[in-house]
Amino acid sequence: MQNTVISPDLIEQDNAARLDALEEDYAALSRALERRGIAIGQVKERAKDWSVAVPSWGAGRGGTRFAKFPLAGEPTNIHEKLEDCAVIHQLGRTTPGVSPHFPWDRVEDYSALREEAESYGLHFDAVNSNTFQDQQDQPQSYATGSLSSTLEPTRRQAIEHNVECIEIGRHLGSDRLTVWVGDGTNFPGQQDMGRSFDRYLDAAAEVYAALPADWTMMLEHKMFEPAFYSSVISDWGSSLMAAQELGEQCKCLVDLGHHAPNVNIEQIVARLHRAGKLGGFHFNDSKYGDDDLDSGSINPHQLFLVFNELAEAETAPRGGFDPAYMIDQSHNVTDPIESMLSSAETIAGCHARAWLVDREALHAAQESNDVMLAFRTLRQAYETDVGPILAMARMEQGGAIDWLGTYRASQHRERKAQERRAVGLGAGIV
Amino acid sequence: MQNTVISPDLIEQDNAARLDALEEDYAALSRALERRGIAIGQVKERAKDWSVAVPSWGAGRGGTRFAKFPLAGEPTNIHEKLEDCAVIHQLGRTTPGVSPHFPWDRVEDYSALREEAESYGLHFDAVNSNTFQDQQDQPQSYATGSLSSTLEPTRRQAIEHNVECIEIGRHLGSDRLTVWVGDGTNFPGQQDMGRSFDRYLDAAAEVYAALPADWTMMLEHKMFEPAFYSSVISDWGSSLMAAQELGEQCKCLVDLGHHAPNVNIEQIVARLHRAGKLGGFHFNDSKYGDDDLDSGSINPHQLFLVFNELAEAETAPRGGFDPAYMIDQSHNVTDPIESMLSSAETIAGCHARAWLVDREALHAAQESNDVMLAFRTLRQAYETDVGPILAMARMEQGGAIDWLGTYRASQHRERKAQERRAVGLGAGIV
Amino acid sequence: MQNTVISPDLIEQDNAARLDALEEDYAALSRALERRGIAIGQVKERAKDWSVAVPSWGAGRGGTRFAKFPLAGEPTNIHEKLEDCAVIHQLGRTTPGVSPHFPWDRVEDYSALREEAESYGLHFDAVNSNTFQDQQDQPQSYATGSLSSTLEPTRRQAIEHNVECIEIGRHLGSDRLTVWVGDGTNFPGQQDMGRSFDRYLDAAAEVYAALPADWTMMLEHKMFEPAFYSSVISDWGSSLMAAQELGEQCKCLVDLGHHAPNVNIEQIVARLHRAGKLGGFHFNDSKYGDDDLDSGSINPHQLFLVFNELAEAETAPRGGFDPAYMIDQSHNVTDPIESMLSSAETIAGCHARAWLVDREALHAAQESNDVMLAFRTLRQAYETDVGPILAMARMEQGGAIDWLGTYRASQHRERKAQERRAVGLGAGIV
Amino acid sequence: MQNTVISPDLIEQDNAARLDALEEDYAALSRALERRGIAIGQVKERAKDWSVAVPSWGAGRGGTRFAKFPLAGEPTNIHEKLEDCAVIHQLGRTTPGVSPHFPWDRVEDYSALREEAESYGLHFDAVNSNTFQDQQDQPQSYATGSLSSTLEPTRRQAIEHNVECIEIGRHLGSDRLTVWVGDGTNFPGQQDMGRSFDRYLDAAAEVYAALPADWTMMLEHKMFEPAFYSSVISDWGSSLMAAQELGEQCKCLVDLGHHAPNVNIEQIVARLHRAGKLGGFHFNDSKYGDDDLDSGSINPHQLFLVFNELAEAETAPRGGFDPAYMIDQSHNVTDPIESMLSSAETIAGCHARAWLVDREALHAAQESNDVMLAFRTLRQAYETDVGPILAMARMEQGGAIDWLGTYRASQHRERKAQERRAVGLGAGIV
Repeated sequence: MQNTVISPDLIEQDNAARLDALEEDYAALSRALERRGIAIGQVKERAKDWSVAVPSWGAGRGGTRFAKFPLAGEPTNIHEKLEDCAVIHQLGRTTPGVSPHFPWDRVEDYSALREEAESYGLHFDAVNSNTFQDQQDQPQSYATGSLSSTLEPTRRQAIEHNVECIEIGRHLGSDRLTVWVGDGTNFPGQQDMGRSFDRYLDAAAEVYAALPADWTMMLEHKMFEPAFYSSVISDWGSSLMAAQELGEQCKCLVDLGHHAPNVNIEQIVARLHRAGKLGGFHFNDSKYGDDDLDSGSINPHQLFLVFNELAEAETAPRGGFDPAYMIDQSHNVTDPIESMLSSAETIAGCHARAWLVDREALHAAQESNDVMLAFRTLRQAYETDVGPILAMARMEQGGAIDWLGTYRASQHRERKAQERRAVGLGAGIV
Repeated sequence: MQNTVISPDLIEQDNAARLDALEEDYAALSRALERRGIAIGQVKERAKDWSVAVPSWGAGRGGTRFAKFPLAGEPTNIHEKLEDCAVIHQLGRTTPGVSPHFPWDRVEDYSALREEAESYGLHFDAVNSNTFQDQQDQPQSYATGSLSSTLEPTRRQAIEHNVECIEIGRHLGSDRLTVWVGDGTNFPGQQDMGRSFDRYLDAAAEVYAALPADWTMMLEHKMFEPAFYSSVISDWGSSLMAAQELGEQCKCLVDLGHHAPNVNIEQIVARLHRAGKLGGFHFNDSKYGDDDLDSGSINPHQLFLVFNELAEAETAPRGGFDPAYMIDQSHNVTDPIESMLSSAETIAGCHARAWLVDREALHAAQESNDVMLAFRTLRQAYETDVGPILAMARMEQGGAIDWLGTYRASQHRERKAQERRAVGLGAGIV
Repeated sequence: MQNTVISPDLIEQDNAARLDALEEDYAALSRALERRGIAIGQVKERAKDWSVAVPSWGAGRGGTRFAKFPLAGEPTNIHEKLEDCAVIHQLGRTTPGVSPHFPWDRVEDYSALREEAESYGLHFDAVNSNTFQDQQDQPQSYATGSLSSTLEPTRRQAIEHNVECIEIGRHLGSDRLTVWVGDGTNFPGQQDMGRSFDRYLDAAAEVYAALPADWTMMLEHKMFEPAFYSSVISDWGSSLMAAQELGEQCKCLVDLGHHAPNVNIEQIVARLHRAGKLGGFHFNDSKYGDDDLDSGSINPHQLFLVFNELAEAETAPRGGFDPAYMIDQSHNVTDPIESMLSSAETIAGCHARAWLVDREALHAAQESNDVMLAFRTLRQAYETDVGPILAMARMEQGGAIDWLGTYRASQHRERKAQERRAVGLGAGIV
Repeated sequence: MQNTVISPDLIEQDNAARLDALEEDYAALSRALERRGIAIGQVKERAKDWSVAVPSWGAGRGGTRFAKFPLAGEPTNIHEKLEDCAVIHQLGRTTPGVSPHFPWDRVEDYSALREEAESYGLHFDAVNSNTFQDQQDQPQSYATGSLSSTLEPTRRQAIEHNVECIEIGRHLGSDRLTVWVGDGTNFPGQQDMGRSFDRYLDAAAEVYAALPADWTMMLEHKMFEPAFYSSVISDWGSSLMAAQELGEQCKCLVDLGHHAPNVNIEQIVARLHRAGKLGGFHFNDSKYGDDDLDSGSINPHQLFLVFNELAEAETAPRGGFDPAYMIDQSHNVTDPIESMLSSAETIAGCHARAWLVDREALHAAQESNDVMLAFRTLRQAYETDVGPILAMARMEQGGAIDWLGTYRASQHRERKAQERRAVGLGAGIV
């Protein structure tokens, strides 16, 4: 029997008060879509089948290098984080996976942790290693980098940490490792760009060698931060080169905030798919740099265009299509549960809209170079308010029609503020 | 008698070994400049008269939101920071001013602190307030902003802190207050942009009212971070509007890293000068965002172009010309003393080069639209290696010809690593 | 009796076939909005009252410096352009104003031109001067700039051209002059930034002096292109300084594509409104630079956020609120009529959405720092599909429910391809 | 006997007046470098051996989409362009190669053209095809793209044009083809990103198949313009994927202005070198977009960092090192001869500085993570004024010490303004 953090009665009661309105909106949308030749039920089923993982660390407040403002009741260990992830999935029904991070989520007994997650109806998704921070008891510092460090003992430590993450992941039921390193430089000349990349590849090859046959290793590139002049894996080109060299099971992960200004991210998605190297996503949004804002909060249209490429890719899988989806945000000013519910809905909405595109009409307009018709075909899908579909899908699976209202009515955070230990002041992401 | 941290004998001895080479280079440059109608001695005297302040916090290691890697022997209080600033000025002779930051540099007795600085031949420059972070014992949180917060008690606290900073500054002998706030939003809609600005201006007016008649209040704008969707004082236009509204003694401070990509910063300098609102500078460099890298390490030519505008402004002062110069960098991977020595030399070099420009020829080329000649006239000055001038100016004032060699020979940091308490792991800038 | 280019019968007939669906969608939206406390009829009336001007030059194909690909049947003079603008307004009902450009739209008899426009139900909006290009018979070249040129005869010519534009505008019934200059430099040192701005202001003051008492002069800033190192009026700060200096009737025009990457344009709108200097808009969209793409085609959410600020400004007019709205796009790959119909609908949709925002709830959430609620309140309005409101407003005013379908059915372009003279190959915007 | 456009007597006479000063500066630099363990003569010989090609089209005035301001005496055909390229090489001695462009440089007899070039001491470098513009007599339009067009006859025409360019190049003595296409879209949805790339690759493969065994095909990527939403070959990742798929003889060309803002171009150089795909360069500079400004005029330090990577690559050639160097600038406001002389000197200076780097010391500092020492080692080379080395190298090869003074004294342009036919007004690059 499943462990429910929010009372199912509360959800049911809240839904009941909103059901008439939802049914009216859903019926109206159904008729409008029908006129466009779309069966709303199929879209709803697709929405139900689709999911995106949440990161364990995202359950806590994030901050900047200047400050972090703690939230009363925020979780301080993986058990409390799982509890909050359970709330997110209970209300939203699109986030059954939790992506853990080590050593932040280190426990004694990983089998017990897996059972704990399963008791909430959750499972563990891609495992994230951390070689960008020093831990208290750590023999080598990552001050000179990790997999690309000039220091052999440091590289060794970073390799072993990644191998340990795979091992933990096997216990947790995961089959993916996400490798992001902060390695890079702050000064021209600080390191040689060629030899740094060589060292990175040699070390990453040792991690790759430890990968079980059914696992995927995902390389996450990032343009800058913490390194401010150059980063070893700074762009999708470097990521692709590395993934090609490491082998079949190595793929590229696209974080929406890790690109240069103005870059066409949806085209990168299309390119990586063609290269057979589209590993997965870290969803978030940004206006300036790697802002880690809530997905779609700044540029929802860009997010839709990414999903449009994904729908194209799924339609034309070439060598295969199986990307991993994960939220990766820093919740500096909101309740992380609310932000992840909002983001998951936004992402699911972009997914649903992409499947509302009249793809046959779109392709025909493209082939005949009817630019305006092609654009309007895509835009029609984007402008469709898919809220009723998502809400109906949630409700039918036991989630909340109005996740924000129901969550607040539950007073989950207020209760946790009483129970959980307070977080101190500080800065940064941990 | 002045307190010297580095043995003057060591400096003298090191200089002796390098003097012949310096004199040869200096003489050669002197002849080359003479051919261009420039008396090298005048440039050298100008270099001696010019200075740039260092920030007290810059004496410590900085970090990112991800991590900070401490340096053995880094200072952990204002006294140790002053000691390191003394080293910088002793070797480099261009940084007699130290810009303090409160509450980080809080002490019991500010008169004693002032004397302590003076014992090193240092003085205090612009005072910096901090309303972007919560302190342990603080009644109100800045989670909702500070001067622009919707909460009156929070605004009140921020106002009073700034007024206290002025008070402290008077004791320290300063006559400038730098106000930077992190106020802004992470979500569209989070705050109303008009009313936030109103609140900021009302609160800032109370700070301004507390300003002594001979003080300047400098507003520092910043495009983003810690706020990632909007910042109340995000650009020079907002800064100018605020400075105009607050009054004569309020001016704008230009931090080189706080602008949108591609922005022509030197033109902003020219515009602010014309508006009578050029208050001063925070020098650093950046490649991606507000990277706080060492001044001129990424784009030394841009720094030169800023100084070219300053030379034009000084030549045509219109309503007056008296900007404050300060370094503001985050030293994440170097010894801060080395970085500030390197940066101060780079900045002083750009200043010197700007005064090598044949301004009469430049103006004539501009007036006659001789584009190539105008460009080459400016470029000739930029390409001149002014190292010998700066080194001679340093040596003649008791500094080190080869500041890096002499500093390392002094083993200052190694000694401090024995004496000073270690800094723990963490993230961010404090 | 009004001159109709498209047969009203065709429109009526096309609408008839689509009316049932529209009424169903409109009724459903009406009920959904009613639940949110919004009377759909009021929004529809507001939509009817609102308009945006089209630029005469936008009726033709645009191009890049590399090439222009002509469109069969595109207009080659102001009479044909008016005819096409008439089509746009007949079908879309939101673009009664046409913004002319001189000397491109020069004719012998401006009273006759005004009557010609009125015969289509059109009027003339802001007049645009051109001092960025040389014309065949022009005594002075703008190679060295125009209002800021070092050459007095060139400045004189530019002043006189602007004064002539005002004169023409009076005959045409306009009351606004838009001044954009391409003045700037391609090399550091090419011109002095201070003196160029001085010359610009002196010359602009002469244009301003010729302004009738009820006219507005709008300064359009642009970050770069055609000048690639510096532009005299490059940003809103420079534009504000100039407008402040020139006088009350001088205001700033915001072109959505003329900003640095990542800039928060909606905040600039709020700032200019507060400064009493919000003159108007040039709507378009861009991904990379000043791409002049169709409004909202790349970032529709940003366009909505601009209109949200406009709704705030109209609600709190401070010193007044009367911005001019104009489309300014380069139609390089589409039929300009289709692009302007699409853009006008997109812009009108953002306007409508901004007035769907529950502003009371938004303000309450802002005051109480309920970040998620504030964000969701704004987002709810953005996600509403206002298509039925816009379509109903169009239809009730004689326009086309499905403007694209009806326009294509009219075969207007095909007919014009027979009648109008062909355009040759070339590049650029003329 | 060689055809000289500028009188050798004039050059000799001008040099004579400047020789004493040059020899003094050269001797001083020689001693300074000697102290750093560098033999100036070796650097000078390296400078003599190095060259960069000029583009034939660069000999004429360029413009923007808004306007082009013609220059009296500019060349209007390949013969006049060769004459001007001869002047550039005669005075500067670093630009013996001319890169032609078709159909702009089409002639009847290519053997005669080759002889004409050789009479000036010039040869033909990489051939550039043009499928981004329509020509008068061309059956298919490139309005829908070229190699990636949906239209088979258009792709066929583009393929055949490229094959013809190879054929012409063989007559001219070239062994490289540069392929840049403007193919892309202005609207989301306009084309499918995957299928466009497929079509591009299929068509490019046909061009590749026509390549002689000793030729290289270079793919030039460009982020945007003329396409403003997506470009088929927009970044180095796409370029690399295409070059990998096409074959060994296909490589990537790096144009310094074709990247997203803030991108670390020197790292791209290092990556492409490692991938064995570094084909060559188009040198220019930019501040905002693809501004095509004079090389090093905006960011000379970035240019130096590129050459530092090239020196590293030459030192560690891995699979080989043989990039092609070419200037690619748009001379909108200067005499193109002056701009290319200035640019060639700037580029040659960066090349020389890169070989002044104490690479052993640099590597040692990198290996020991001595960040400041590594940075200063690089910076020392950058700050060295290599002007005397370049001038001496020029003079010893018959060029002008002061190329600008001698060029102006020659009155070449004034004479050509009498002889050559005038260019009309217009816009763009042709």
